[in-house]
Amino acid sequence: MDNNISSENQEQEEQVVNPWEVSAKGKIDYDKLIEKFGCQRLDQSIIDRVAHLTGRPPHVFLRRGVFFAHRDFNEILDAYERGEKFYLYTGRGPSSEALHLGHLVPFMFTKYLQDAFKVPLVIQLTDDEKCMWKNLTVEESQRLARENAKDIIACGFDVSKTFIFSDFDYVGGSFYKNMVKIAKCVTYNKVVGIFGFTGEDHIGKVSFPPVQAAPSFPSSFPHLFAGKHNLRCLIPCAIDQDPYFRMTRDVAPRLGYHKPALIESLFFPALQGETGKMSASDPNSAIYVTDSGKDIKNKINKYAFSGGQDSVENHRKYGANLEVDIPIKYLGFFLEDDVELEHIRTEYGAGCMLTGEVKKRLTEILTEMVERHRRARAAVTDEMVDAFMAVRPLPNMFS
Amino acid sequence: MDNNISSENQEQEEQVVNPWEVSAKGKIDYDKLIEKFGCQRLDQSIIDRVAHLTGRPPHVFLRRGVFFAHRDFNEILDAYERGEKFYLYTGRGPSSEALHLGHLVPFMFTKYLQDAFKVPLVIQLTDDEKCMWKNLTVEESQRLARENAKDIIACGFDVSKTFIFSDFDYVGGSFYKNMVKIAKCVTYNKVVGIFGFTGEDHIGKVSFPPVQAAPSFPSSFPHLFAGKHNLRCLIPCAIDQDPYFRMTRDVAPRLGYHKPALIESLFFPALQGETGKMSASDPNSAIYVTDSGKDIKNKINKYAFSGGQDSVENHRKYGANLEVDIPIKYLGFFLEDDVELEHIRTEYGAGCMLTGEVKKRLTEILTEMVERHRRARAAVTDEMVDAFMAVRPLPNMFS
Repeated sequence: MDNNISSENQEQEEQVVNPWEVSAKGKIDYDKLIEKFGCQRLDQSIIDRVAHLTGRPPHVFLRRGVFFAHRDFNEILDAYERGEKFYLYTGRGPSSEALHLGHLVPFMFTKYLQDAFKVPLVIQLTDDEKCMWKNLTVEESQRLARENAKDIIACGFDVSKTFIFSDFDYVGGSFYKNMVKIAKCVTYNKVVGIFGFTGEDHIGKVSFPPVQAAPSFPSSFPHLFAGKHNLRCLIPCAIDQDPYFRMTRDVAPRLGYHKPALIESLFFPALQGETGKMSASDPNSAIYVTDSGKDIKNKINKYAFSGGQDSVENHRKYGANLEVDIPIKYLGFFLEDDVELEHIRTEYGAGCMLTGEVKKRLTEILTEMVERHRRARAAVTDEMVDAFMAVRPLPNMFS
Repeated sequence: MDNNISSENQEQEEQVVNPWEVSAKGKIDYDKLIEKFGCQRLDQSIIDRVAHLTGRPPHVFLRRGVFFAHRDFNEILDAYERGEKFYLYTGRGPSSEALHLGHLVPFMFTKYLQDAFKVPLVIQLTDDEKCMWKNLTVEESQRLARENAKDIIACGFDVSKTFIFSDFDYVGGSFYKNMVKIAKCVTYNKVVGIFGFTGEDHIGKVSFPPVQAAPSFPSSFPHLFAGKHNLRCLIPCAIDQDPYFRMTRDVAPRLGYHKPALIESLFFPALQGETGKMSASDPNSAIYVTDSGKDIKNKINKYAFSGGQDSVENHRKYGANLEVDIPIKYLGFFLEDDVELEHIRTEYGAGCMLTGEVKKRLTEILTEMVERHRRARAAVTDEMVDAFMAVRPLPNMFS
């Protein structure tokens, strides 16, 4: 009964954001999301502090507000300033062979965090989750996890500081003990409230949240963090993953752990417009790391929603609507040169620059980025995957 | 809403039998239980067949109807007759340090089955379950699992055919994959229907049924049964465990496995009378394997519910009511000599034998049995526990 009410409510809401669905009638209202989830906006003072503490300019995703919300990130920085280290935890649900640009965003940012803070990183591949949600076989989920690991490794992580694991390979031992300890602290009603499960959902779904929660606690990785029960955890992720970690943060003090801190990103918008995440089921909604230069050019020209006017004459007169323009949004993610970006925004907004010119520049940038990724991925051997996924100590992970 | 209705129904029922509760207003009505659960009564023709196929007299627990119900046990026997082997699976939830006589019943019977059919056996110690249900720490659950393993080994299992494992030690790999596959096939509504969970129960409880189901499938034990996907499984257990395996049997064909067969026992009655299982929380309701001869004598004399009359005069006149007499019930489990048991029943029922005499004979038998068990347990070393619990192949397990 309660379940029905909550899912009806959800349908009536203007936007739905959870780990399996991101949709909105108009644009995602991130202020509303922050308020609903109870996280904080990442303000300029924190960004300045990151720059100061790491001695590096803040990552473009920080400067541009791509990572825009957090939970207790300031406490991580306080601890870091006192000389305490922490570890990073991020992950991926391996549901498809090819990653799209949106999938790369958290990994690109996580690599920056690893380099800037010089800290270890665990990356969870939730092949069990995808096996359950997407009705893949165990074997296919595991294959996808390994394929995705290659794309992740291609983002440039440091093998001496990074442990990548798949749940099907790794769940057991201390990790399983933490799953059980976490599950003991969370009622069914609670997960219904957080995730909106119904009685018709299978119990694999109900069992899964502790699997994603467990890596937030250092004792889940005895080969890495033995004796480091107090080590803090920072989780970079898209904000749709927040529900898992809200649950985890509720549980943490009861198990004697720090609450994991989060730093959370916007969704990378679909080519068709900013009403949700890109959909893996519509290949034309996203640019994939496997797309050729020609694919990228075609997709941008054909599908990228333009804020330009319907005729050159009107465009020159009124300028582009940058608020809805997807090429401008994408440039905001991937054009690192602030001066050039500002120039394009000004010229395009004033109608001096045409949609075609902006799309051409975006095509160049994405083609170069995707080709660079493809070269990096081609260089990732099976031996390298094995090395990242080996259950091993990381002797110099904090240096 | 559905949950409330089903739990109210359960409260109104005259008897409640599930893995966590066995209670009845009067005696347990086993015919009703068989009908409700949908299992079959174990009839004389099956017992005769067991004797014929194994070339041994049937175990006293078969002759006396202690193991009284089954699911597809005849199919196990059909397969065995064709020359196919099977494996045995039983288990224990390690919630207390000392086992009582009721706990020994399935293990005594399982040992007989192992010897008679010459088949491998897996024994699951559900330390994760007890950690979750009894609110024990992980460490305490694991300690109890190991202590209980000593009592189990003391029952005489053949180490060359027996693998004992604790969930906290063993869950992972193929076992975890089977947990996920099973969980995918079972909705929350389904487990509510089977186990009566409510929304206030923690999700560890909801997650557990696949853990107890997984050992029913040979691929959960790759070190034992690699390539033996079609191996059948026979589960000896008390009938309160039936709900787990009803669920498992629903799932099995969808995963390409044989449904596990079951052979199910009555509950061993409490000293105070036959209205449920013994309660671990009332030490005077049961005789423990740690009780001294004096304890046993006192408990039987003081607490064992007697069907004898209230005066010697009336007893001589009317005889004992054997239907409610606990010493007679206990002798039915443990006095192997059919002739002597029949003699006692006749004499006691006719009032020729007094309650004190029956209790004296029972005290002798149980004292000897408990002392034998204690000697056997004292001989179980930590090395032996390690040997039974080692993840290893069992090279001659079918011979």
